[in-house]
Amino acid sequence: MSGVSHTQEEPWLRQDKELASASRYAQDRVSYEGQFAGKKVLITGGLGFIGSNLAMRLVELGADVLLVDSLIPDYGGNLFNVEPIKDRVRVNIADVRDANGMNYLVRGQDYLFNLAGQIGHIDSMCDPYTDLDINCRAQLSILEACRHNNPSIKVVFAGTRQVYGAPQYLPVDEKHILRPVDVNGINKMAGEWYHILYNNVYGIRALSLRLTNTYGPRLLMKHGRQGFVAWFIRQAMDNQEIQIFGDGHQLRDMNYVDDVVEAMLLAAVYEGANGRIMNLGNDPPVSHLEFVQTLLEVCQEHGMGHGGYRLTPFPPDKKRIDIGDYYADYGKIRRILGWSPRIGLREGLQRTVAYYAQHRDQYWERA
Amino acid sequence: MSGVSHTQEEPWLRQDKELASASRYAQDRVSYEGQFAGKKVLITGGLGFIGSNLAMRLVELGADVLLVDSLIPDYGGNLFNVEPIKDRVRVNIADVRDANGMNYLVRGQDYLFNLAGQIGHIDSMCDPYTDLDINCRAQLSILEACRHNNPSIKVVFAGTRQVYGAPQYLPVDEKHILRPVDVNGINKMAGEWYHILYNNVYGIRALSLRLTNTYGPRLLMKHGRQGFVAWFIRQAMDNQEIQIFGDGHQLRDMNYVDDVVEAMLLAAVYEGANGRIMNLGNDPPVSHLEFVQTLLEVCQEHGMGHGGYRLTPFPPDKKRIDIGDYYADYGKIRRILGWSPRIGLREGLQRTVAYYAQHRDQYWERA
Repeated sequence: MSGVSHTQEEPWLRQDKELASASRYAQDRVSYEGQFAGKKVLITGGLGFIGSNLAMRLVELGADVLLVDSLIPDYGGNLFNVEPIKDRVRVNIADVRDANGMNYLVRGQDYLFNLAGQIGHIDSMCDPYTDLDINCRAQLSILEACRHNNPSIKVVFAGTRQVYGAPQYLPVDEKHILRPVDVNGINKMAGEWYHILYNNVYGIRALSLRLTNTYGPRLLMKHGRQGFVAWFIRQAMDNQEIQIFGDGHQLRDMNYVDDVVEAMLLAAVYEGANGRIMNLGNDPPVSHLEFVQTLLEVCQEHGMGHGGYRLTPFPPDKKRIDIGDYYADYGKIRRILGWSPRIGLREGLQRTVAYYAQHRDQYWERA
Repeated sequence: MSGVSHTQEEPWLRQDKELASASRYAQDRVSYEGQFAGKKVLITGGLGFIGSNLAMRLVELGADVLLVDSLIPDYGGNLFNVEPIKDRVRVNIADVRDANGMNYLVRGQDYLFNLAGQIGHIDSMCDPYTDLDINCRAQLSILEACRHNNPSIKVVFAGTRQVYGAPQYLPVDEKHILRPVDVNGINKMAGEWYHILYNNVYGIRALSLRLTNTYGPRLLMKHGRQGFVAWFIRQAMDNQEIQIFGDGHQLRDMNYVDDVVEAMLLAAVYEGANGRIMNLGNDPPVSHLEFVQTLLEVCQEHGMGHGGYRLTPFPPDKKRIDIGDYYADYGKIRRILGWSPRIGLREGLQRTVAYYAQHRDQYWERA
């Protein structure tokens, strides 16, 4: 027997070879505008932050949109999020953990934007089972529902940078090893892999976009357990003093929600995206401090943001699952889909603050 | 703000730095022999293949051993496996999915060898929920049980090479990207990461050994759904013709069970192993063909193995989750614990065949 070292032709490597030819798409964004007219589209987590923004765009594009959401009180679902399109979408209140319900709801759909999830990092440590049921088990049953009831559906999964854990190098590309630092990261990793597996093994076309911090109108603002962005915006608008943990130099890349919606639509229509995992991201990265300073300036233009900010030590429960600096290399999605973010931080924050200035009462009780 | 790229000091990197100093252990195996006397040891999957071999060694070392096993019919648990030590261990029939039971059973234990699992690759595709419940949910509840009832316990988790999927390069080291190709691989990946997470966040000392193909006495022989090794041995001993899928040149590294048991004992006593993930492995790798030829020679010495073998095409359900060649780089555990396998293939097969020649009726019905 020979000791020759050789590897199988493996999807990951094969994909990288394709990138060379895909690079012709790098100059031009894939076109999706005409492709959703009359199409049936299911969005899980459809009343949530990204789901509702996506729904508004899809309605604009002429799609027949069905929103599934469980409206779990502390999660992001909010009926007001779809107020502008409420007569042009169907809303079905259901939990993705209900396998029977999902078996029915996926039927006949052309696209599934699979955004329902438990996204609180700290919550996942306090209640790991709920996180498991939503981010693992329900994902499996959604994919089984597709496999048995609608195998020709195309699935776009909302993955997360959280699977990488603390970066070993920056910017983080998709070849970065996965070392999640909380239960949520582990379960999202499994949920993402189910999608790739069902694509590869059963031909259920699916892909994952690994989202980084996303912000914009319709973001959950009821509590601060889903990340610092919402909480900072709320405090700034309420003229409260913002507490920045650590020295404020920690770096993040942040996407305005419309850019994320566009990435999802591009990925949905482009067959070359099937089976792939692609980072979203933005450059340059911004520090917490820079984010807060920009936010306060934007708020002050609207007569708010008078609470300022201060630096404060990390609370222990947050520190132990903190990942330090993070920003992504999003070259892969740029090469494959021609996507790159278009909305800068200041403009994104201006739109966000303007939205909440008008609709604050629908999102939180004024301090 | 600066665009400087810098990373946090990260456990993975930190560990690699430690390896330089740990290399002084490379010459000498860590000593464990005196360290289990009078110690309370819990083994989940304790009536299974590896669990029972481990139990026999621990009894020899003077440990107070408690075996937990659910005896699910098609799994590896078999009361006969512990026949030689049945009066010197306690057996508690329980399912690791029973969180209340585990809450009680972990109390007062010094060590937990956490070996219970669903390990069939095809089974995991047919019934992904059971795989999820055992390999993810139950792992979480075992760790929660330790956290709340016995935080000073030391946990050795039986991980698997299955998390790597199809190798991108050979031999596969621990930095190889994880791309599992079946539900079992995904869930085992999550289960492993829960252990590392609970070590890092809650200080529940835990580590994972990524096992490759393991064989030896007490391996489940009732069916062929847990890998080719058991099935080939059974067919050879029954003088049936062995069917090798593909051209027979596919490579694997195989560990005799005593070597795996030793790795687990070393890892249990060595504090420097906490939080780590380490491959087991063997060299040189052997082809399926070489394995079968050696097996048939060994069987023929016992007057069996007259059925020979033939090459046959892969069945589609196996082909689509097949990973091609695999063998591990086990340099990390060699450096850290001084472990390397001691039993060669021929000797291991001789011991295995001798065991089943004596006890065949306890393991399968003769053809």
